[in-house]
Amino acid sequence: MLQQSTQLDRLYHALADGGRRAMLDRLIKGPASVSELAEPLDMTLSAVVQHLKVLEESGLVRTEKVGRVRTCRVEPKALSMAEKWINQRRGLWERRFDRLGDLLATLPDDEQGKETKS
Amino acid sequence: MLQQSTQLDRLYHALADGGRRAMLDRLIKGPASVSELAEPLDMTLSAVVQHLKVLEESGLVRTEKVGRVRTCRVEPKALSMAEKWINQRRGLWERRFDRLGDLLATLPDDEQGKETKS
Repeated sequence: MLQQSTQLDRLYHALADGGRRAMLDRLIKGPASVSELAEPLDMTLSAVVQHLKVLEESGLVRTEKVGRVRTCRVEPKALSMAEKWINQRRGLWERRFDRLGDLLATLPDDEQGKETKS
Repeated sequence: MLQQSTQLDRLYHALADGGRRAMLDRLIKGPASVSELAEPLDMTLSAVVQHLKVLEESGLVRTEKVGRVRTCRVEPKALSMAEKWINQRRGLWERRFDRLGDLLATLPDDEQGKETKS
């Protein structure tokens, strides 16, 4: 199993490209073959295959070859992992502000807005 | 103003490195000078400055120089933007499964689990 930090590196690297995000947008609607995935995109099939490799390495997409057709599917667990890291940090940030608000609320009205307490 | 796609590219690229994520983790706790930011990290000051540049370009961090000290702050709006894109896709994915569940619920019990309807 990959270390969590390496997996986050790969997840965010995979998301850091508009073409790969467009491929994920397509796969969110349902599984697709590589050629179906490539069809609406303004890129060569070879570029699509390269992007698909990055998406697979990140765990965001799983592919399976049956006969001559490779079917691609999105992996919602990887999407959740990428969301969770950011969500936790946003939560920490908001709690820091809540604590600051609580602290201000404990000050008498005439103390608020002053640089230093008398 | 940056195009949304370019901004998402920069946001996820900034998040795709464990060192940069550690710097964000520090800044979530409160503003810090560049040397305070560098202190717990196992990297040169020059590497910290390079990572800081990537974080600033992404909008995740804002820095301000007063006298000889550059103070770094996290920008929660950029964090929200990075979270939102993923959250929306996860939402679309879940709704797709809800619709599938609703569809299955409309089938008579003996139809469920069959490959085709008779």
